[in-house]
Amino acid sequence: MSKKLSLIEAYNQTKYQLVGHSKRDLAVLKEALEAFESDLESDNYGTGKIIDEFQEKMAEFLGKEAAVFFPSGTMAQQIALRIWCDKKGLKRVAYHPLSHLEIREEDGLKELHQIESILLADKDSVIQLADVVNIDKEISCLLLELPQREIGGQLPDYETLEAISNYCREKNIKIHLDGARLYEILPYYRKSAPEISRLFDSVYVSMYKGIGGIAGAILAGDHDFIKDSIVWKRRQGGDLISLYPYIISADYYFNKRAHKMSQYYDEAVELARYFNQCEGIETKPLVPVSNMFHVHVQVSEEKLETILVELYEETGVGLTTRITEAEGNKCFFEMSIGDRYSLVPTNEVENVIKVLDRRLKEVGPEA
Amino acid sequence: MSKKLSLIEAYNQTKYQLVGHSKRDLAVLKEALEAFESDLESDNYGTGKIIDEFQEKMAEFLGKEAAVFFPSGTMAQQIALRIWCDKKGLKRVAYHPLSHLEIREEDGLKELHQIESILLADKDSVIQLADVVNIDKEISCLLLELPQREIGGQLPDYETLEAISNYCREKNIKIHLDGARLYEILPYYRKSAPEISRLFDSVYVSMYKGIGGIAGAILAGDHDFIKDSIVWKRRQGGDLISLYPYIISADYYFNKRAHKMSQYYDEAVELARYFNQCEGIETKPLVPVSNMFHVHVQVSEEKLETILVELYEETGVGLTTRITEAEGNKCFFEMSIGDRYSLVPTNEVENVIKVLDRRLKEVGPEA
Repeated sequence: MSKKLSLIEAYNQTKYQLVGHSKRDLAVLKEALEAFESDLESDNYGTGKIIDEFQEKMAEFLGKEAAVFFPSGTMAQQIALRIWCDKKGLKRVAYHPLSHLEIREEDGLKELHQIESILLADKDSVIQLADVVNIDKEISCLLLELPQREIGGQLPDYETLEAISNYCREKNIKIHLDGARLYEILPYYRKSAPEISRLFDSVYVSMYKGIGGIAGAILAGDHDFIKDSIVWKRRQGGDLISLYPYIISADYYFNKRAHKMSQYYDEAVELARYFNQCEGIETKPLVPVSNMFHVHVQVSEEKLETILVELYEETGVGLTTRITEAEGNKCFFEMSIGDRYSLVPTNEVENVIKVLDRRLKEVGPEA
Repeated sequence: MSKKLSLIEAYNQTKYQLVGHSKRDLAVLKEALEAFESDLESDNYGTGKIIDEFQEKMAEFLGKEAAVFFPSGTMAQQIALRIWCDKKGLKRVAYHPLSHLEIREEDGLKELHQIESILLADKDSVIQLADVVNIDKEISCLLLELPQREIGGQLPDYETLEAISNYCREKNIKIHLDGARLYEILPYYRKSAPEISRLFDSVYVSMYKGIGGIAGAILAGDHDFIKDSIVWKRRQGGDLISLYPYIISADYYFNKRAHKMSQYYDEAVELARYFNQCEGIETKPLVPVSNMFHVHVQVSEEKLETILVELYEETGVGLTTRITEAEGNKCFFEMSIGDRYSLVPTNEVENVIKVLDRRLKEVGPEA
């Protein structure tokens, strides 16, 4: 009798995986490095050809005057908010209750920058114009995260974005885009990056999520903003002597994948449709608006883990490595589509969904 | 008639260079990567085999309970001081007037952490026990930089270090080591890293200076301190999804060079002796105590630049790419010995010194 595998162990033994681009191993860096000559000079504390050219490329992609490469989005976004707060002389901002800054950064914004945050909208909804209009204190900056990751990657409609942007500009409130997954939402909006970015005073994009680089982030805005952000990057310890391992991988995978976002989006829509055929499953959003969605399941986390381990072993198809508990003895997991999905034969996808449906019917919903 | 080259252009055309390990280009990363298998898994937000093992290795090397890998020394040291300040409930520390924190970090310690600094000792001297005893305000932490880079890498004697450490412990003052160049001073002190580290409550070492990695730093201390520093690393934006490009290069070049520090030190002593034979030149320290020293020259920066450009063209040996102006129409440049020095034939070193001496005699000292 074999020992029961953990979810990750079972996942790692599957032949196919439905999410992501590839394993996150050294091969990712080696592939990128091969595209560059060995005698390419390192950047040097934020200067040099390799960093200058990539920053210019991303500024142009985003339709902003300038851009700066950061080791992390956490650092880039705290700094953006700090700059806008200092400019107004008021350390208060507003964002969603499930913003990365609120739940994933150990309160860095408060502990390092002494910036107070007002939480807008119910945690299960995206921010609407009324939420912004109804803020009862003065703020320096509004941060919008597009898509709202922690609720499955939901989006407001473009008209709402425009209305919020216009309102902020009328009221002298800066508006910052947490665009960690900005590339991923362009197909749904049918807009270019500059058409989204122009609604914002500053924009952050990640170089490792949809793009699949090693790490790193771009912060973009006008020349004055970027000049200030470079000073803050040094203050916060992000002005490394060499950032090139991240820059070359960002550049390489940007070129490889930035144009594939429509494909990932279409595939997410397809896969969500499959999941929604299963007993006791509903995806959020019901129809994805980017390459990601959450799969909500009417059984406990523990029960789903047992089902998935057996499912992975039986079908050879891996869905996820992490299940999150939800209220009422339910649970959910995140799906984020990358290069791997198109490598899985349709009949394998249909089979894993069929088996999942059968298993969920067998256990029935939780009491 | 050819256009006059800049100092860097002339340096880049020399056959031999007396400082550093190699060109800082992509080959440095490629060499390190080749030592690791492609299927080695990435670290993941501070967890995983690759980061755990390296942190344990460095904790053991330093003789501390635990260690954490940081993207930058700037971040690591601010965080160390913040932790000690928070522990005592007093945001005041003391360090040398030419500390990296005071002159190279855009006041991050003050702007981000609101920590006040007291500057100890004259800027041309290292900190002595009396400087510490005479501090007239309470402090949470004393930072010592060994060697004191901005004054040529000077060191107090070991007895002074012990006396300062004992005094701080008596007075409930934490003592932090800016050991960016800690490996480089062990041969002079004839001590092991733990024998130096045990005098300090927390220790930072750089992974790219003497070691020659790509970037990155280690912060070491007791378990509680490291637990706190991991929280602060996330707050400050240093908890990247993947730090492995820096970790593998730190590990690879640590193995390649940590045992070569005696050689670099001996070579620095030799080279300083050569320089001190030249007209109007005195090294600081006169006899180096690590792999580095400063070369002080009795002519203006402008005049020395002209001399060095011609010297590089005539001899094919490069000394430095950067000259710093000093008071009284004088100047100096830094020499930091690495792998390159031993590749230069002795007669080439002697020749460049001879020609430099002749040129300096021709121009004479500044009026």
